[in-house]
Amino acid sequence: MGQLRVENDRLGPELSEALAQTIRCVDEVLDLLIPKPREDAKTKLLAAMRYSSLNGGKKLRPFFVLACSELFSVSQTCAIRTAAAVEMLHCYSLIHDDLPAMDDSALRRGLESCHIHFDEATAILAGDALLTMAFGVLADEQTHSDAKVRCELIAGLSKAAGPWGMVGGQALDMIAKSGEFDIGEVTRLQRLKTGEIFAFSCEAGAILGKAPAAKRHALHAYAQNLGLAFQITDDLLDVEGQECETGKMVRRDVDAGKATFVSILGLDRARHQAHLLAEQAIQHLEIFGPQADLLKQAARYIVERRS
Amino acid sequence: MGQLRVENDRLGPELSEALAQTIRCVDEVLDLLIPKPREDAKTKLLAAMRYSSLNGGKKLRPFFVLACSELFSVSQTCAIRTAAAVEMLHCYSLIHDDLPAMDDSALRRGLESCHIHFDEATAILAGDALLTMAFGVLADEQTHSDAKVRCELIAGLSKAAGPWGMVGGQALDMIAKSGEFDIGEVTRLQRLKTGEIFAFSCEAGAILGKAPAAKRHALHAYAQNLGLAFQITDDLLDVEGQECETGKMVRRDVDAGKATFVSILGLDRARHQAHLLAEQAIQHLEIFGPQADLLKQAARYIVERRS
Repeated sequence: MGQLRVENDRLGPELSEALAQTIRCVDEVLDLLIPKPREDAKTKLLAAMRYSSLNGGKKLRPFFVLACSELFSVSQTCAIRTAAAVEMLHCYSLIHDDLPAMDDSALRRGLESCHIHFDEATAILAGDALLTMAFGVLADEQTHSDAKVRCELIAGLSKAAGPWGMVGGQALDMIAKSGEFDIGEVTRLQRLKTGEIFAFSCEAGAILGKAPAAKRHALHAYAQNLGLAFQITDDLLDVEGQECETGKMVRRDVDAGKATFVSILGLDRARHQAHLLAEQAIQHLEIFGPQADLLKQAARYIVERRS
Repeated sequence: MGQLRVENDRLGPELSEALAQTIRCVDEVLDLLIPKPREDAKTKLLAAMRYSSLNGGKKLRPFFVLACSELFSVSQTCAIRTAAAVEMLHCYSLIHDDLPAMDDSALRRGLESCHIHFDEATAILAGDALLTMAFGVLADEQTHSDAKVRCELIAGLSKAAGPWGMVGGQALDMIAKSGEFDIGEVTRLQRLKTGEIFAFSCEAGAILGKAPAAKRHALHAYAQNLGLAFQITDDLLDVEGQECETGKMVRRDVDAGKATFVSILGLDRARHQAHLLAEQAIQHLEIFGPQADLLKQAARYIVERRS
């Protein structure tokens, strides 16, 4: 919540309230899904899972699940459980990305990374457990009464998170040395690493609401542009941001000589490109009329955020 | 297949053929599900996934999926895809268990462990990808025409593999120092770490075949006993086995001072207990009559195997 207060000048009141509401709802469900460890618990597994999923974060992906669900009058319970599953998956990816063998990052959301606060084995297992549970949450009939819808969510999340999605993108990111990846390759990398989960988050609303294909495709296109805009902004924050604002280590990519949008385009062109993508994302929402105003605001916020 | 030839003296011809057939069928499906990397592939992700799932292994869990599916006349395609998903999950757990921060094991199935053959980041991601794909395979309608059945499989696998199943057991295993865990605690640890996935493998057949509750419960009880018998035999092989036969490092638990069935019960009582559990497992199969002969043979093989 601290982050949100700091950033209120960048957020309209409606979006600010929607993001705060997302955090409240999703944290409430995560708190139930990942119970506190019993006092006699021998392992730190549950504690680590809670540490990495309940301690802040902007919860942007859950916000997109909820906001897109609203377009199709999906029940709150269904939408929030789906949002919680997406957040579990996102938190697993952060835990594993921070590991010494991966990005070796000691700071996350303004706190010690999971493997620093606990230990490396616990961090690996906490990530594994969150990933495993995410699919279990989606498979439960509380998430949707129609099993076909649940299977579609699971198939979609698996595809977006697997070797042809997020994990494939992270594998590329591990070898993306500056000078060896061109703009096309960095774009592909980031589409996989970030774009696919953004796209799934938005499409999940359409899946839950059994939306017509045209609207679903519009959300997919919106999210793909948005995911890239988000990632370029992340790259900018890595260069220009402050750890006290971003809550994670900065200049990591620069120091590691990683190929990023900024290393290839430079600061100004990268910033321009992010704003262009946000505007393109907004174009795709025309089909929804004023109903999609919140999603339009979110697109602008994505490229103006400082954390 | 080498392992199977070595062990043929312990296997009746029927079980021997069924295990060989399992390997053929499941490898064929895994080979399709995890395609060869393209020649211009930048990452080793797909290669690592294939390395760790297609290079041997007894494929016992897939065997149980197939053998139990046969009891309920489940179509081969459904059973084999489910078996492949279970094997993907099992292979992910082996890759992550072998990591330096976990069991730090350099040898697996007679080959270098994934993180030795590739690198640690690739191994973490290959495990993540296999786990992620396992759920996607189950969610696909090729696995079963009834989406409710698919959701039940996914919910069951998630529960068996998550913090109240395999991952929870592995977290306990990381801290199970000899002298600090009693027999009750080691039993609970192994029920979680090994038993739950064995139980799911057997129950999956009942789920696919929409079996009556009594038969499903019988398979659950069979598998729970069998899982423990399997684990005690693993503990015995860690002490008495040869690397050339087991294909993995031996005396790891002894050297690490881990609490195991053998460290607590001693060799003779542990061996006796494994055989007792196998016989108890067999008792639970009475409800199936001679149809379950293969599963009875498998129970005896589990405690007599040398790898």
